[in-house]
Order: sequence, then C-alpha cells, then structure tokens
Amino acid sequence: MKLSKLCQEIDINFNSQDIEIIGLNTLTQSTPSQISFFTDKKYINQLPSTKAGAVFISQEFAHHLPKSTIALITDESYLKIAQSSKFFTHKLDITSSSVEIGNNSNIDKSVGLGRGIVVGDNVTIMYGAYIGDNVTIGDNSIINPNTTIYHHTKIGKNCIIHSGTVIGCDGYGFAHTKDGRHIKIYQNGNVEIEDDVEIGANCSIDRAVFGTTYIRKGTKFDNLIHIGHNCDIGENTLLTAQVGMAGSSILERNVVMGGQSAVAGHLTIGAFSTIAGKSGVTKSLKGNNNYAGFPAIEHKRWLKIQAKISKLIKG
Amino acid sequence: MKLSKLCQEIDINFNSQDIEIIGLNTLTQSTPSQISFFTDKKYINQLPSTKAGAVFISQEFAHHLPKSTIALITDESYLKIAQSSKFFTHKLDITSSSVEIGNNSNIDKSVGLGRGIVVGDNVTIMYGAYIGDNVTIGDNSIINPNTTIYHHTKIGKNCIIHSGTVIGCDGYGFAHTKDGRHIKIYQNGNVEIEDDVEIGANCSIDRAVFGTTYIRKGTKFDNLIHIGHNCDIGENTLLTAQVGMAGSSILERNVVMGGQSAVAGHLTIGAFSTIAGKSGVTKSLKGNNNYAGFPAIEHKRWLKIQAKISKLIKG
Amino acid sequence: MKLSKLCQEIDINFNSQDIEIIGLNTLTQSTPSQISFFTDKKYINQLPSTKAGAVFISQEFAHHLPKSTIALITDESYLKIAQSSKFFTHKLDITSSSVEIGNNSNIDKSVGLGRGIVVGDNVTIMYGAYIGDNVTIGDNSIINPNTTIYHHTKIGKNCIIHSGTVIGCDGYGFAHTKDGRHIKIYQNGNVEIEDDVEIGANCSIDRAVFGTTYIRKGTKFDNLIHIGHNCDIGENTLLTAQVGMAGSSILERNVVMGGQSAVAGHLTIGAFSTIAGKSGVTKSLKGNNNYAGFPAIEHKRWLKIQAKISKLIKG
Repeated sequence: MKLSKLCQEIDINFNSQDIEIIGLNTLTQSTPSQISFFTDKKYINQLPSTKAGAVFISQEFAHHLPKSTIALITDESYLKIAQSSKFFTHKLDITSSSVEIGNNSNIDKSVGLGRGIVVGDNVTIMYGAYIGDNVTIGDNSIINPNTTIYHHTKIGKNCIIHSGTVIGCDGYGFAHTKDGRHIKIYQNGNVEIEDDVEIGANCSIDRAVFGTTYIRKGTKFDNLIHIGHNCDIGENTLLTAQVGMAGSSILERNVVMGGQSAVAGHLTIGAFSTIAGKSGVTKSLKGNNNYAGFPAIEHKRWLKIQAKISKLIKG
Repeated sequence: MKLSKLCQEIDINFNSQDIEIIGLNTLTQSTPSQISFFTDKKYINQLPSTKAGAVFISQEFAHHLPKSTIALITDESYLKIAQSSKFFTHKLDITSSSVEIGNNSNIDKSVGLGRGIVVGDNVTIMYGAYIGDNVTIGDNSIINPNTTIYHHTKIGKNCIIHSGTVIGCDGYGFAHTKDGRHIKIYQNGNVEIEDDVEIGANCSIDRAVFGTTYIRKGTKFDNLIHIGHNCDIGENTLLTAQVGMAGSSILERNVVMGGQSAVAGHLTIGAFSTIAGKSGVTKSLKGNNNYAGFPAIEHKRWLKIQAKISKLIKG
Repeated sequence: MKLSKLCQEIDINFNSQDIEIIGLNTLTQSTPSQISFFTDKKYINQLPSTKAGAVFISQEFAHHLPKSTIALITDESYLKIAQSSKFFTHKLDITSSSVEIGNNSNIDKSVGLGRGIVVGDNVTIMYGAYIGDNVTIGDNSIINPNTTIYHHTKIGKNCIIHSGTVIGCDGYGFAHTKDGRHIKIYQNGNVEIEDDVEIGANCSIDRAVFGTTYIRKGTKFDNLIHIGHNCDIGENTLLTAQVGMAGSSILERNVVMGGQSAVAGHLTIGAFSTIAGKSGVTKSLKGNNNYAGFPAIEHKRWLKIQAKISKLIKG
C-alpha cells in the first residue's frame, strides 16, 4: 500500500514523497519497500545503515537515519508498528483451495486445504489435518491426524508431525497503550522446518513476527513443546516434553533440553550443551557444557549448591 | 427433576415436601430450585442465609439452615453432590445442529456444529473447528482450524482463538469414596470470553463446576496454557506460554505472568502484578508488585536469596 | 520377515540358520520370533535366560547368550535395533476403514476411522475425532471432539476423553550416530486405558516402544499432561494439569501429583504418595508419604529447608 495511505490510517503526519510499502521488518533487514521502527537506544548504530524505506522514530533520533529513509515521527514507535502490521497480514479466504501433489502421495479426503499448497512425493496427510495457504511439504513426510499447519509454513523431507501439533500459529507480540491495553502485532513471518525433523503431539511452534522461525535439520521434539516466534532451533537438537522456548532465542546444533526446562527470550545456547530437566535459562550459555537449575548454572555447581542446601537443616 | 426422585437415586432419606430441582450451586449462589452442600466449617456463616432449595449436610449442622431450605442429611455431602451432578449435565445429542449466522460471516463447510449456536457479523470459523450447543461468538472473531468450543461457551467480539485450543472442557472435580475411588462432579457451568481476547494454540480453559469461568476483556494468552474451572482472569492480563492456573483463582486486571509460572487454587493476585517465569504462587498476592520463585515472594527478596545461595558454595 | 533379509538391510553379518522375525522386544520379554539387544552391562544376567530368537550384541558378551539365540554381532546394538524397528512398524493405509459398533452407540459422521475398530455399547464419538486401526473402545465411553486415538489403542468402559488429547502417539526414542544424528526407534507397542478413566484436554500419551503404556482403572487426568512411553500409571491416580511423566516410570495406585510436577524416567513411586505441585522427582519414592521440591524430598523436610532459605537474607 501507499505509505501516505498507511500514515493516514494510523495517525502519522506524512509530507514526504510517497512510496509503495509491502511489509515491515527490523532495521537491519528492511528493504526500501519495507517500514521499520526504532525503540531502543541500544540499536542506535543500526540507524545510519538501514535500508528501510521508512522508520517510525522519535524526533530526537531521526537525524541518524540515512537520507534515503523517510522518518515517520512518533513517540510511540512500537505501537505504530503494531497498528501498521494489520495492513500487511495474510488475507484469509477459506472459500477455495488448490494443491499440487507429487507421486504416490496420499491426502485423506477430509483434509482441509488452502491455496497454493505444494506437496512432494510419498507424502501422507491423515484425517483432519489442516494445511494452510502456500504451505510446502517435502517428500516422504507424514502429517498425522488433526494437525494444523498455518499458511506459508515450509516442511522439509522425511519429517513426521504428530497429532494436535500446531505449526505457524501467531507469535505472542503486542504493543501496549498508555491505558494498559495490548495492541496485536500481526505476525507476518513464517515457520520453516528442515529435513528429517520429528515433532511430537500437541506442540505449538509460532510463526515469526518478521522473517522465519527455524527448526533445523534432524531435530527431534517430544510432546507439548512451545517454540516462540523467531527462535532458531539448531540441527540435531533434542527437546523433551513440555520444554518452552521464549521468542528470538537460538539453540546451536545438538543441544539437549530435559523435560519442562525453558529458555528466556533473545538468548543463545552454545552447541552440544545439555540443559537438565526443569531448568530455566536466563542468560546465554557457552557450548559443550552441562547446565541445571533456575537460574541455570553449570551442572557441577548446581550439584554443589544442592548438597549445601541439603545440609542447611542439619547445621 | 423432583427432589424426591433424586434422593432415591443417590440413597438419601427424603421425607419433606417435594420440590422441583433444576441444578446445583454454592451456598451463596443457589436459588430455591437448586441444591447446595456443606462440607467445610469455615463457611458455617453462609448457612443461615442460603436460598438453596435443599442442602446436603451432616445432622450436626443442619439446624443452621433456614426453614425454607430442606436439609438432606448425609455424612458424605461432597460425594452426594458428585452423584447428583450427573442428573443435571448437558445432554449430548450429536444428531442435529442449528446455527444463526450474522452478515459476512464465513463458516467452513467442514465445521462441526451443535444446536442453538449464534454467530455475529464478520466472523470466520475455519476448517475442523467444533462449536458446541448454545455457543455464542461475537462480531469479527476468528476461530482457527481444529479448535474445540464446548457447549454454552460465550466468546465476545474481536477475539482470536488459535488452533488446537479447547474451551469449556470439564473442570477437574471429583469426590472421593472411602475405598479410594474418584466420583466425577459433572461440570455444569460454562466459560465466558469477553471482547478483544486472543488465545494461543493448544490452550485448555475449563468450564466452571457451577457458574462461569471468566476471561476478561483485552486479555492475551500465549500457547499451551491451562485455566482451571471457575478462574476469573482479569482485564488486559498477559499470560505467556505454559502458564497454569489452578481452579477458582482470580487475577485482577493487567497481571503479567511469565512462562511456565503457575498459581495454586482459590487465590487472588492483585492488579498490575508481575509474576516471573517458572514462579509458583501459593498465597494471595497484593497488586502493583513483582514476584518470583517457588513459593513466590517479592522479586527483590528472591534476588537477594539467589545471591546468598550462590555464595553458599564459596563460604 | 526373514532374519537374513533384515541383516542384509541393516549391514549385519549373518551366517546362522534363518528364522522368521515378527518384531523386537526386551531381553526378558522377547519370544523366539523376536529380536532383542544388549547395550548395558547392568543387565548381563538377563542374557543366559533370554528367549529371543536373536540379539544385537558385541562380540565380547555374545558367549553369555543361550545356544538357542542367534548373536548378531555389532558394536552399535542400539543403533541396529533402531534401524530394524522400521521394518516392523504398523503400515499406514488411509484408504479404507471398517468398524464394528455395539448397541446405542453414536459415531458422528465426520469421524475419521481406520480398519478393524471395535466400539462397544452406548459409546459417543464426537465430531472430528480420529480412531486409528484396531482401536477398541468399551461401553459407555465418550470421545470428545477433535481427539486423536492412534492405532491399536485400547480404551475401557466408562471412559471420558476430552478434546485435543492424543493417545498412542510415538514415544520419544532415538539411537544416536557417531556424527550426532538421531535415528528413530519406531514405537511398535501400544496404549491401554482401563475402565473408568477420564483424560482432560490436550494431553498426550505415548505408545510403548515395545509392549504397552498403561493407564489403570479409575485414574483421572487434568489437562496438558504428558505420559512418556512404557509408563504404568496405577489405579485411581490423580494427575493435575501440566504434569509430565518421562518414559518407563511407574506410579503405583492412588498417587496424587500436583500441577506442573514431573517424574524422571525409569522410577517407581509408591502407592498413596502425594507429590506437590512443581516438584521434580529424580529417584524412586516409597509409598504413603508426601514429597515436594526439586529434587523431590519428603515434604516436611522441604518445608524446613524453605524456612532456612527464607532466613538466609536475615542472617
């Protein structure tokens, strides 16, 4: 849509040359046809080099933007990106469907199908699954009954998705008004599941707000796992039941997480780490090590503390 | 049904004037055509003023009831209310459906529909959803694929319900026999979701045993959240992934709960409280404060204790 | 299949007399037409008495096997059992269905049905449920909407299964290659749910790798519960919301587990135990006692430690 039209809809003063906007993105990843936003001084060095067509920004910082980027002046950048997000969200149209199917694939006649779906060879999609618009599913994958795959999800080859799992549901993103209301940031990214991945039952994997939530090659999920938006779950990771990953966190390859453990948002866990059951990770962690506890610390240290605590009632 | 008939079914001696009974309820909320029960001396002051038509009660306390209320004498009041509950539960009839639909609403042809459903304007109900008897759904709401809405649930305007979520399933309520068996208390209440609520994927929100489980206006749920029967989740509350709320607890407005945190039953959490991830709340908490830990305490105090614990292995 | 053929498929040297193999199992439970595996010296005393037709085993220990058992020599027994498991898994065929239905039972016309299903009297199966091959459902049971029952699950009489629950999904079992990949151990066992069981919404109960995962008579589950493969959940157990049970653990009768508590794998919890909410059980526990904390200890002791910790910041 025209930037001038968008600004009118969300009450932003606009008097620059008009441009066509096709979406929203971060400062570093925006293209000239996308809008971005600036809310945190920590990222001030990203301003001069942004390629965004326009940026929601307060007057104070606007001079850091390059000349090619339009400053959209506001004291509520995050709220404005939320209000804008609605105009770029996928349009639901449940009245038609189209699917391109490879050889020897079997889609149950009950399955719910959107438009523009591409299914590879030897794929089985069982009763009651829903496959949204523009989903792709690679060769030899099995989608078990009553699974839901939201629009634009990509599923690789040799994947198994168990029943009740939801892939590509909206991430949890809201801007907050001064009177305590929460304004939805429409989640216009997607989920990509690479080859050889198995996802257990009743998991939920959120689509990205911008860009992609990744589940990398060879990773295996147990049941009832939550993956927040924009996570990147590394190759050959093992997540056991009821694990929770808050948004934008990264697991490098071959991480193992025990049951009911969790990682807070915007962290990186190094490759070949092991995180014990019930742990809560609140800081980024180096790889090739074992962690436990909440807040999670080195497993050896945690065992020592447990021993000390255990002695407390004797002392 | 006739009270005399009910008493015969559940082995209660009955020799009062007969009345028609239409359901069960608490001492304070029962009407003259409902039965209630007395099991806990703490509530003895509720007896004289109850409006219940009849009450299961032990001989010892029966004289506290008003003359207008029939005492149904038993030493197992809770078991008797469980046995009675079966007679007042919603009768399933999956052979017919009827729905009243507003303008511009789109219900996928696959959707499962009960009887007496009322759907507003501009509503979208996607593939594989089930909408039970007497459910109402307000204008502009979106029900995503493979969602289940049990009978008598009310959903407001501008709501988004994500896939796999179950609203109005039975609360967890059982009376226990002396030999260790558990007798179901049929959950004859419902769930009401007010306007502007978003519920993530694979959540479960239990219907009330009597009355209503409330999710108030503007509240936003992440994925895999459990809400027990008779909870009241206040306006503009933010519940992140894998939060659990035990039965009959109250969150006042604008509470924020971190991932995997939980609140025990029958508690009240004050407005504008923040409860950190993984916390477990075991007592009612005042508003406008931050809490953490299990058992949850003030966040500042929790940080101090963590620092002390951390020093334990050095000392 | 012929053992010679299987060995060829998985690169095992074979020069014994050929036998017909119908499946895989443990050393103690294998029959002469099953293959087993030896990976842990702890179980060396099970070797001489195994009835398995063949066993994956390293050269070093092969002489402990009885003469009637063929030694399949490998240094990667666990990987070989994983590679073999694929050949004995249930063949999906979603193109046909057959069901035998008792009197007064009501199966919604939308329900997805496999082959060889047996449904008792007075059973209700609601919209959107999927019932896999060879499932049996006993008299008076209710399967709520959008529930998924995988093949070969047995459900007893008077059971209630709530929406979104998945029974019989694959257990979480993988063998690991030297380069960090995970090879699926196909889960060829099943789940058996005895009479008078209620399962809440969005639970997942894994099928056994070999044999059966049991949910015993009279047990009641709340919502969002995970049961790993080969667990045995005793009679009249009460599991509240978001409980997690890792694989092969046993709850004896009338255990009560609080919300978000969990039990690690291969443990036994004694009858009439109570495990407090949020606890994590890491060792087997005696019955008739109350436990709390992580690692879980006696509840009384846990309370003392909490009191001491609470004093830390004053000291």
